[in-house]
Amino acid sequence: MTEDDFLEALFKRMPVPPGELVIPPGDDCAGFRMDDGNLMLIAVDQVIEGRHFLEEGSAAASPGQVGRKVLARNLSDIAAMGGKPLYCLSSVALGSRHDMEWLNGFFDGMLGLCRRCDTHLIGGDLARGAGKTVASLTIVGSVRAEHALRRGGAREGHGFWATGVFGRSFPTGHHLDFEPRIAEGRWLAEKGLAAAMIDVSDGLLIDAGRICRASGVGLFVDTGAVPRRTGDTTLEEALTDGEDYELLFAVPKEKEELLRRDWPFRELPLARLGEFRSAPLPIVFDSSGKPLEFKGRRGWDHFDRE
Amino acid sequence: MTEDDFLEALFKRMPVPPGELVIPPGDDCAGFRMDDGNLMLIAVDQVIEGRHFLEEGSAAASPGQVGRKVLARNLSDIAAMGGKPLYCLSSVALGSRHDMEWLNGFFDGMLGLCRRCDTHLIGGDLARGAGKTVASLTIVGSVRAEHALRRGGAREGHGFWATGVFGRSFPTGHHLDFEPRIAEGRWLAEKGLAAAMIDVSDGLLIDAGRICRASGVGLFVDTGAVPRRTGDTTLEEALTDGEDYELLFAVPKEKEELLRRDWPFRELPLARLGEFRSAPLPIVFDSSGKPLEFKGRRGWDHFDRE
Repeated sequence: MTEDDFLEALFKRMPVPPGELVIPPGDDCAGFRMDDGNLMLIAVDQVIEGRHFLEEGSAAASPGQVGRKVLARNLSDIAAMGGKPLYCLSSVALGSRHDMEWLNGFFDGMLGLCRRCDTHLIGGDLARGAGKTVASLTIVGSVRAEHALRRGGAREGHGFWATGVFGRSFPTGHHLDFEPRIAEGRWLAEKGLAAAMIDVSDGLLIDAGRICRASGVGLFVDTGAVPRRTGDTTLEEALTDGEDYELLFAVPKEKEELLRRDWPFRELPLARLGEFRSAPLPIVFDSSGKPLEFKGRRGWDHFDRE
Repeated sequence: MTEDDFLEALFKRMPVPPGELVIPPGDDCAGFRMDDGNLMLIAVDQVIEGRHFLEEGSAAASPGQVGRKVLARNLSDIAAMGGKPLYCLSSVALGSRHDMEWLNGFFDGMLGLCRRCDTHLIGGDLARGAGKTVASLTIVGSVRAEHALRRGGAREGHGFWATGVFGRSFPTGHHLDFEPRIAEGRWLAEKGLAAAMIDVSDGLLIDAGRICRASGVGLFVDTGAVPRRTGDTTLEEALTDGEDYELLFAVPKEKEELLRRDWPFRELPLARLGEFRSAPLPIVFDSSGKPLEFKGRRGWDHFDRE
């Protein structure tokens, strides 16, 4: 069972939430209505020693990089809704390998990024106990209700667009120093150019597949157009590696020219990777109409088979 | 260094938060202003296998008890502000001992208490990886701005009151099935009877000491008046064991009679344990004026010496 499946079943077991919960669980953030016309966005994400960061070898992460990463992952979720981050809270279960000095470095990294993104740490819980360090962070942000970008808004004929480049995030260290696309997400939301959006945490295929599933459309990707992080990055790596933290979004046909013309983030690659179309299944296909899969794993059911 | 000291120093390193953050870090919850005159309350707390719950022996916790506990701890923080819980988000790093069946039981316990307390789970993050299971939960609630109860409102002459009984929470299993005092906290807040409040997670002496420190007053406790959980609970256990999740609060003298008369929770013991008075240090004393300490540990600096 995948994490998505588990959480989906879990959230279905609960009574229907009150009317103020405008964006129920299942998007990058949940969102509830504030009286001033904004939605309050909230999400949680964690990093685990040995899984999201290493302590040994040439790819070892500094404590500051770990603290930065757990915040940046969450900022990326706010970015994917077109939101502005406001506050965060972090709990840390300090593993046997880590001491107070490590914890100080961890928060140095987190607070450095907090300052740059105008986000305030307003709560925390610290404990010793686990063999491995686990750090969890909850992010709170806001977005105008009419600007919020969800996963379910892609329609037949929309272009499929992406920021940045893909693949080999772990070996290149990108997963430790990526820039969450907050300004880009807000710009897309405020200009009304995107109809659906998600950030890439689990891999381009999986995350694009989540837009397909939520929107009920298929996606046809021109695999040759997918920008790769390095010269030796394979197509499979670009499509399945994960931790790119770029934005994937659907753009209505009549807005694509405007997007191309007005995109103000000149240093960040912007690419049209394909098109949403009706299909027998809400999954990702290549441009010839063959389901995109690698080693039997196909977009949205990647985790099912692991 | 204690967790309090570490977090206090940490929060001081950040730029001053924007004006909407009415209750900065350092209380049971942080609180920021909503446009409708309410404060949004938010807090995070975690439980760790082997520290907050056991997997072996006669005191072993069921998965449902663990899920219930991590929520109940957080509900107790909302209760301590006089607030009403609304939403929660939970991240779980599943340890090597636990499988999907355990995780289902964990959420059964959490959702059961969610329903009873009208609280909605709106986000989650699940991962495998740690040797020991770590579960973190973020709670969101609200309170009318004028009703919010903080730690710093105790003044000379206020009575020191407590709900419930104390000590031996772990051996009796109380830490797994306690009732967060939400209705009681809201009643105290709405009636305007308490001037400061906290819940007891780390022990009566430590948590009462936190009111002293935040309020700048001393507290004189009639140790004979402290209600003990069982016949064989010692005074030291009642004052230092922790995990009682009862409310401690300061009541202005002119309101004490009203409190005693109108207290509507007839099945829950309510006791006056002492009085706040000016003192050379903002710590807890016995009624003869001797600092209350056990094995050299004295209320608010309990953790410093561990």
